[in-house]
Amino acid sequence: MKHARIRYEGTLHTATSADGVALRLADGRVIAADAVEAWLPPVEPGTIFALGLNYADHAKELAFKPPETPLVFLKGPTALIGHRATTTRPAGVAFMHYECELAVVIGQTARDVPRERAYEVVAGYSVANDYAIRDYLENYYRPNLRVKNRDGATPLGPWLVDAADVPNPMDLRLCTRVNGVETQSGSTRDMIFDVPHLIAYLSSLMTLSPGDVILTGTPDGLADVRPGDHVVTEIEGIGCLDNTIVADR
Amino acid sequence: MKHARIRYEGTLHTATSADGVALRLADGRVIAADAVEAWLPPVEPGTIFALGLNYADHAKELAFKPPETPLVFLKGPTALIGHRATTTRPAGVAFMHYECELAVVIGQTARDVPRERAYEVVAGYSVANDYAIRDYLENYYRPNLRVKNRDGATPLGPWLVDAADVPNPMDLRLCTRVNGVETQSGSTRDMIFDVPHLIAYLSSLMTLSPGDVILTGTPDGLADVRPGDHVVTEIEGIGCLDNTIVADR
Repeated sequence: MKHARIRYEGTLHTATSADGVALRLADGRVIAADAVEAWLPPVEPGTIFALGLNYADHAKELAFKPPETPLVFLKGPTALIGHRATTTRPAGVAFMHYECELAVVIGQTARDVPRERAYEVVAGYSVANDYAIRDYLENYYRPNLRVKNRDGATPLGPWLVDAADVPNPMDLRLCTRVNGVETQSGSTRDMIFDVPHLIAYLSSLMTLSPGDVILTGTPDGLADVRPGDHVVTEIEGIGCLDNTIVADR
Repeated sequence: MKHARIRYEGTLHTATSADGVALRLADGRVIAADAVEAWLPPVEPGTIFALGLNYADHAKELAFKPPETPLVFLKGPTALIGHRATTTRPAGVAFMHYECELAVVIGQTARDVPRERAYEVVAGYSVANDYAIRDYLENYYRPNLRVKNRDGATPLGPWLVDAADVPNPMDLRLCTRVNGVETQSGSTRDMIFDVPHLIAYLSSLMTLSPGDVILTGTPDGLADVRPGDHVVTEIEGIGCLDNTIVADR
């Protein structure tokens, strides 16, 4: 089953969908996906973890050595927006890149989860587009907030797809299309640290909680996007996330 | 006025105190600070921002060049604990350092706040001890979560002190005492990026929200702490935050 959080007739609703076309609201009404007024991120996350350089081809593309331990950073809640929203290209920057990423949503409180039990703590999966403002990569100590944490920098959705409906999250095709042209393509098979590794690693350091989200990194295929561009990130069996770039105020 | 969140007779309460000795609970009862069963962080934060290398002497101590723009990273909610709690020294690490820091608590939704109006969005101040596991500083791209984000790594409290009661947050003495001996001493005067600069900078990138916390960095005076050590971080006029180091499981 797919789960969404939406606005319909001016009110926030949770909804489920089997086919991604008809949504059943929590109050029992059934509406068409096209009738949704606004899509929110499908979860209200606690901690949002994000991975840097978690696909070897992408690390190479950025001229970085692949990491020996997961490079994890955190994102704040204002970065998240939903499906069919707009993301601002900040004025005066040279490089704004999309990043199609598998988002893992945690389903239970978890600490010190062994790798072989990691999937037990996963509620489901979603699609993220974790935009990066590449101008500031020269600041080597951190992924500066200017790169990764501006308001609306990370579309997430449209669905949270139940883990039970994703037989093998480590073999899913990812792709990005800009104005209808495919510019990024990869497979979750090529992650350096796979989902069980990430859950074992993170839960060895801290408690994971229901609603926490892990953005698992992106394959190569970066390209600059500009105001007016329509960017679709898609993951096989998880969903197709639309976003439009708009100019800064 | 000072504000706290505490457990008393098994129940969570919000409380206020004029003198830090007697607490008035929201239900009207007055209790002694000594009768508090447990202290929670005085705010439930949304985004927790933290500064790296924001005092020139500390950057020098770590052999880093002082930054040219604020080095900000985010922390997750499981890192926070309250006054008089314990923090675990992870097994097998070589360097666990306290860091006494002025915590700024945001009081209103704010975007693009000019420097000269920055104090208008501050609700108040608290004391943080943002422990760092220094073993992992060699991972130069990020403040890896191993360094800064383990469960209970950041005591905060005991009080949120109203901004109106802190005439000049940029001239406060900070100090740390380990087992009664002063090991760190400085003044908020010596921040590289002061509180108005940080608020202007952060709000130029993203929306700040009530309850967001900015941990403003620490002066020099690092020392390793070990299980059994009693660590007190104090900021003039803000409070005195107790923490005890315990061994890993």
